[in-house]
Amino acid sequence: MDAMAGETRPGEFELIARHFAPIAGPGGLGLVDDAGLLRPARGYEIVVTVDALVAGVHFFPDDPPASIARKALGVNLSDLAAKGAKPEGFVLSLVLPKGWTEAWLADFAAGLAGMAAENGCSLIGGDTVSTSGPLTLSITAFGSVPAGRMVTRSGARPGDLVLVSGTIGDGALGLKVHGPAKPGWISALDEAGRAFLADRYLHPQPRLALAGGLQSHASAAMDISDGLVGDLAKLLKASAVGAEIDLNAVPLSMPARAAIMADPALAELAWTGGDDYEILCTASEREYPALVAAAESAGMALTAIGRVTAEAGEARYREQGKARSFAQGSFAHF
Amino acid sequence: MDAMAGETRPGEFELIARHFAPIAGPGGLGLVDDAGLLRPARGYEIVVTVDALVAGVHFFPDDPPASIARKALGVNLSDLAAKGAKPEGFVLSLVLPKGWTEAWLADFAAGLAGMAAENGCSLIGGDTVSTSGPLTLSITAFGSVPAGRMVTRSGARPGDLVLVSGTIGDGALGLKVHGPAKPGWISALDEAGRAFLADRYLHPQPRLALAGGLQSHASAAMDISDGLVGDLAKLLKASAVGAEIDLNAVPLSMPARAAIMADPALAELAWTGGDDYEILCTASEREYPALVAAAESAGMALTAIGRVTAEAGEARYREQGKARSFAQGSFAHF
Repeated sequence: MDAMAGETRPGEFELIARHFAPIAGPGGLGLVDDAGLLRPARGYEIVVTVDALVAGVHFFPDDPPASIARKALGVNLSDLAAKGAKPEGFVLSLVLPKGWTEAWLADFAAGLAGMAAENGCSLIGGDTVSTSGPLTLSITAFGSVPAGRMVTRSGARPGDLVLVSGTIGDGALGLKVHGPAKPGWISALDEAGRAFLADRYLHPQPRLALAGGLQSHASAAMDISDGLVGDLAKLLKASAVGAEIDLNAVPLSMPARAAIMADPALAELAWTGGDDYEILCTASEREYPALVAAAESAGMALTAIGRVTAEAGEARYREQGKARSFAQGSFAHF
Repeated sequence: MDAMAGETRPGEFELIARHFAPIAGPGGLGLVDDAGLLRPARGYEIVVTVDALVAGVHFFPDDPPASIARKALGVNLSDLAAKGAKPEGFVLSLVLPKGWTEAWLADFAAGLAGMAAENGCSLIGGDTVSTSGPLTLSITAFGSVPAGRMVTRSGARPGDLVLVSGTIGDGALGLKVHGPAKPGWISALDEAGRAFLADRYLHPQPRLALAGGLQSHASAAMDISDGLVGDLAKLLKASAVGAEIDLNAVPLSMPARAAIMADPALAELAWTGGDDYEILCTASEREYPALVAAAESAGMALTAIGRVTAEAGEARYREQGKARSFAQGSFAHF
């Protein structure tokens, strides 16, 4: 099948190619070939990550097309950041529902082009097909790391500190703000606070500025996409360790604090809800100062929230000095 | 998001990981990380290809799950073969419809495992999500070529011979045999002929044994997925050349000949229908004997069907000495 073609009506192939060709990098061969090319520098390896997004599951069908595109690429770039990798390119499977329009496609391509350019990650190939179901996107993204230097989930060791970037819970709260239900606590937020949270849900910011520091100083890392509690469980399992976490140390944004003040039950949503796209990582006592310094010089906050223990698979949470447990690590998206 | 996880019900993550972990290669890191790794040998580049398949468009929803899996990987491997690349790994986006069962998943994974093992192409990552729509698959596959040696669509030169591998039209005829409509001409075929055509539709065989010969001797190549006539037009456009094609030279299988004998209108379906997954390539007079010899030593037929001309974009077809034109190059799939 074609670089950016598929089983659409005649003429749509050219239309799609026209909108996506400007996003193509040198490895995309103008999107006229069957395939793209990755040319890692000598001594480098390619990190590969893939994320699929479905309308009605990962975003709302009537979200702005540019936002959908930014999120689809952003969640993949977030994975590359967590692995300590530099973005090198991506391919897109675009599964279009009935009734798509050229205006929708143009806005989508513009959002994708912006996100690609801002992060130095160009389109090197793709496939477009039609579906009787909802809009579905799958992006496979590629990053480079010096050979043997990808940051895995499995390197955490007892005694390491557990850290998170930025603030936690904004995405899950932002989904509530942005979605149609509009719960009562939203009225406790000012307009700027509501906009902040909705933006955090709609437009994840991949923490690529942390990639170099993670590669040099982290013992393990992953991005937080399915909730801090659930994703920490995965990291601990991969590393065959446990952790003690102080939930009061988990960094919250001002709007998230205001929301939780209005409805204390939202704290659990913040800790377990998805769509953070922050970095969860571990670092030894020795590497910790250098890791935090690297983050600071990149203009990013990294906050210690606990410590790795030897109790494999066991995450113990404390809130205001009391033990706290979670029945289910990750909330479903909708 | 996870190597092979996603927004499914709790416990399904482990279930899916269990079925897919056996297909994972060393670069898949046991599918417990966010990402896979590609480690090209020194002096090699990575060829990247992506194809999306949707139930009801590219296959029937009730096709055997193992056949769906084999086709999804096979069409990607077919692209790698056409580019002269050696398979190195793949990632899978699996978008599951409501009501999937573990039995379905087990059969799908078994088919995928078989295809992966037969072609030396292991799973290095993936994402699984759910949809309200039809089953959708997107596979991104990776192959290696010596730097600068990927066979493109754009290298055909006037005077080159135009060649195709295997036989043309079996997939499009096989779709009719396999589908629910059962046209009258099917009765002209014996049981073995019907089974042959249906199998050609259901189980494309990537022509990887041709990859080395193409890399050494072809001036341009692509796989034929959307019909010979439509795909040749793309190759000619990319190379800014034309071609004269003798339709009587296009190789047909015995069952395809029998079908066309019963209904002569089927010849056009054979030339323009999709799902061939054969190789379309060009070679200079000088390289042609070595290319055919390489194919023969790999046990594969390559047949010359015409010649490249200098008339950019112009494909001229002759059938029994008379000019023949096609209103539409490629049929839609359904």
